[in-house]
Amino acid sequence: MSINPAGASHEAREVSRLDAFSDGVFAIAITLLILTIQVPDPLTTRAHTLGAALAQRWPTYVAYVVSFVFVLIMWINHRHMFRYLARTSHTLLLLNGLLLMCVTIMPFPTALLAEYMLLPDARVAALIYTGMFTVIAGAFNSLWWYLSRHSQLLAKGVDTGFTGSITRRFAVGPALYLTAFGLAFMSVWASLGLTIGLSVYFALPHRIVPTEPAA
Amino acid sequence: MSINPAGASHEAREVSRLDAFSDGVFAIAITLLILTIQVPDPLTTRAHTLGAALAQRWPTYVAYVVSFVFVLIMWINHRHMFRYLARTSHTLLLLNGLLLMCVTIMPFPTALLAEYMLLPDARVAALIYTGMFTVIAGAFNSLWWYLSRHSQLLAKGVDTGFTGSITRRFAVGPALYLTAFGLAFMSVWASLGLTIGLSVYFALPHRIVPTEPAA
Amino acid sequence: MSINPAGASHEAREVSRLDAFSDGVFAIAITLLILTIQVPDPLTTRAHTLGAALAQRWPTYVAYVVSFVFVLIMWINHRHMFRYLARTSHTLLLLNGLLLMCVTIMPFPTALLAEYMLLPDARVAALIYTGMFTVIAGAFNSLWWYLSRHSQLLAKGVDTGFTGSITRRFAVGPALYLTAFGLAFMSVWASLGLTIGLSVYFALPHRIVPTEPAA
Amino acid sequence: MSINPAGASHEAREVSRLDAFSDGVFAIAITLLILTIQVPDPLTTRAHTLGAALAQRWPTYVAYVVSFVFVLIMWINHRHMFRYLARTSHTLLLLNGLLLMCVTIMPFPTALLAEYMLLPDARVAALIYTGMFTVIAGAFNSLWWYLSRHSQLLAKGVDTGFTGSITRRFAVGPALYLTAFGLAFMSVWASLGLTIGLSVYFALPHRIVPTEPAA
Repeated sequence: MSINPAGASHEAREVSRLDAFSDGVFAIAITLLILTIQVPDPLTTRAHTLGAALAQRWPTYVAYVVSFVFVLIMWINHRHMFRYLARTSHTLLLLNGLLLMCVTIMPFPTALLAEYMLLPDARVAALIYTGMFTVIAGAFNSLWWYLSRHSQLLAKGVDTGFTGSITRRFAVGPALYLTAFGLAFMSVWASLGLTIGLSVYFALPHRIVPTEPAA
Repeated sequence: MSINPAGASHEAREVSRLDAFSDGVFAIAITLLILTIQVPDPLTTRAHTLGAALAQRWPTYVAYVVSFVFVLIMWINHRHMFRYLARTSHTLLLLNGLLLMCVTIMPFPTALLAEYMLLPDARVAALIYTGMFTVIAGAFNSLWWYLSRHSQLLAKGVDTGFTGSITRRFAVGPALYLTAFGLAFMSVWASLGLTIGLSVYFALPHRIVPTEPAA
Repeated sequence: MSINPAGASHEAREVSRLDAFSDGVFAIAITLLILTIQVPDPLTTRAHTLGAALAQRWPTYVAYVVSFVFVLIMWINHRHMFRYLARTSHTLLLLNGLLLMCVTIMPFPTALLAEYMLLPDARVAALIYTGMFTVIAGAFNSLWWYLSRHSQLLAKGVDTGFTGSITRRFAVGPALYLTAFGLAFMSVWASLGLTIGLSVYFALPHRIVPTEPAA
Repeated sequence: MSINPAGASHEAREVSRLDAFSDGVFAIAITLLILTIQVPDPLTTRAHTLGAALAQRWPTYVAYVVSFVFVLIMWINHRHMFRYLARTSHTLLLLNGLLLMCVTIMPFPTALLAEYMLLPDARVAALIYTGMFTVIAGAFNSLWWYLSRHSQLLAKGVDTGFTGSITRRFAVGPALYLTAFGLAFMSVWASLGLTIGLSVYFALPHRIVPTEPAA
């Protein structure tokens, strides 16, 4: 970080710390997901082999991978959204903090789904899991909505086409995850299938190349 | 980080690493809070449904959100306080380390409150919880007090009005949290209510716009 | 991070956030490995002394050190690979994310091996452990393969000799770890011995000094 | 991070990532120490009050604070040692990785000491605890010893007086911690007392102001 001792670059420095803090929270939340996957207790696996005990826990691995990909996509989008950020505001920090709070919660619904996916209470776990995705997508859109309406926070010369194309792309997220949430009332498996499909879909490269700002 | 190979920017680099370390500790402490929220054991939830088991744990979610918002505000303030920092001193590092130590402790009183809020020992948990808020607010003020008295650590041209306005704003924190601590002796709920109210209050945008340093 | 408010440096900033996120995930994954090493329960160690109880757990320390060195080498290589990265692409982010996912999984096979190395199920644990090394080395090569085929992402002037020498060096990794994986079917100890040997080998300094890019 | 697209600054970037990774590991290791402090189980605290149960665990808090201060001092020294680092080498990365490995292990001896300080096995725990301090101080000195003998890694113009004064200051660390380790064979309390005293001593500001490099 190149700090202008005269304080002229304090805005850049504040953006930089916002990036660093956000990256840190994303990195930790995504890494803590692994705590979902526990080693089987040797005392309880004696009856069957370790291989069988591990195979039985497949919902854990599915939940882990789906959550990891989701948080990764959120980080990629966050990075994309903040690429032209040039200064911050208190409201931006709060909305970003709200998004980060939702992201840090992810290990909980992930572990919940992993534990209950094959039990009678699977519906409750799936509702909380897909509900969390919906909330995060919503928090993400709030942050973007705020940012696109406060273009003074963006670098000069950023084309409004940039913000427009992103708005359309992001807006569908909450609606789609809400559909997965609703589906869970009817079929847990259909709901989780849609959630997995959405992760794959959002992970694929998109054609929306944001307009480069005029230099 | 742009490093001047001639060593001229080593001060900037040290400030940069102080920022990075502090951001890292804040980010990890805030993310570890989620470990407070545990998945109910399927063996013990058989008697009632998962939904009921999760609903019963509402104090956990309250404690989580209040602590998250508190650490987030502390990070925002830390960032605000350090925005004009241009060099470091050993005492600054120690006082900052003391603040970080208090922040990393937060997952403990949070889990304590979550576990005991509805039990007969709630008062002890509330005293430790609000006491920790008071100590952190105090450590924060010590750091700021030191910084405002060593303006040679700040970038040149920072108006003394900047430090004055922040001092007044920060000074009320410890007193208010101390009140919440004292209240806990009389009423646990009043104490926690005040703590939540303070989080909301400090999270709201404030009019105190620090005087920009003369460029 | 020096951010050009006109947005000209947004590419540098995106590379910077990619570095920061990757470094964060590596740093957290490597630090979480310590959770493998648990303190013996005083109630169960009463029969023998603490010293004996700790000595008995030697597979834990071996698994910890081998995994730590492996992740450290992966980080050193990642850093080496990205040293001339000048811009990013969506595919790069995905392949990097895949690598990071594999790295964050490491605490699981490490704990698995530590727990089962001396039990009858050691083979399953060793297969998963060495299999994970193979997958990570493979993910690493996919990322490098993509990068070496998209030289527009690298800084101008990077000699193709640079990418060629790295390709040869990295390519042997997956084959060697696959050998360790295969060995586990015959002998768990030979497989783990080879894995440890590979860690030492890759940790040693190599003569492959990449050609410096023309300035 | 200001990245010269022509690759000229790749050395600065590699130093920057070394800083970032090291800061990340220090920050996570220091924050994971809090996992040492566990919330008492309500079922087992029913016999006495929560306050008594928490007071009984005072060794946990002592071990936490001593370890936190130690890791903090190590980070301050690391930062001090690397302040003039201008480029890296493979050996530097390995020695630094060795130091980081020792630092990430800290949560284990800390939890061990916290659990066994008041039990008959306290000596074993104290030996491992003070032994770990000695090893970390030794790893730190190895890194510094290497760095002071490879001045081509430092920024140009760094006075040799700088490296000399640091060498003398750092060299006493391992000897003093080794004394604490030896003391543990005779008296656990004397050993821990010396360890605490050393933390306080090293935390205090020192007069050794390194010679600023000629600009």
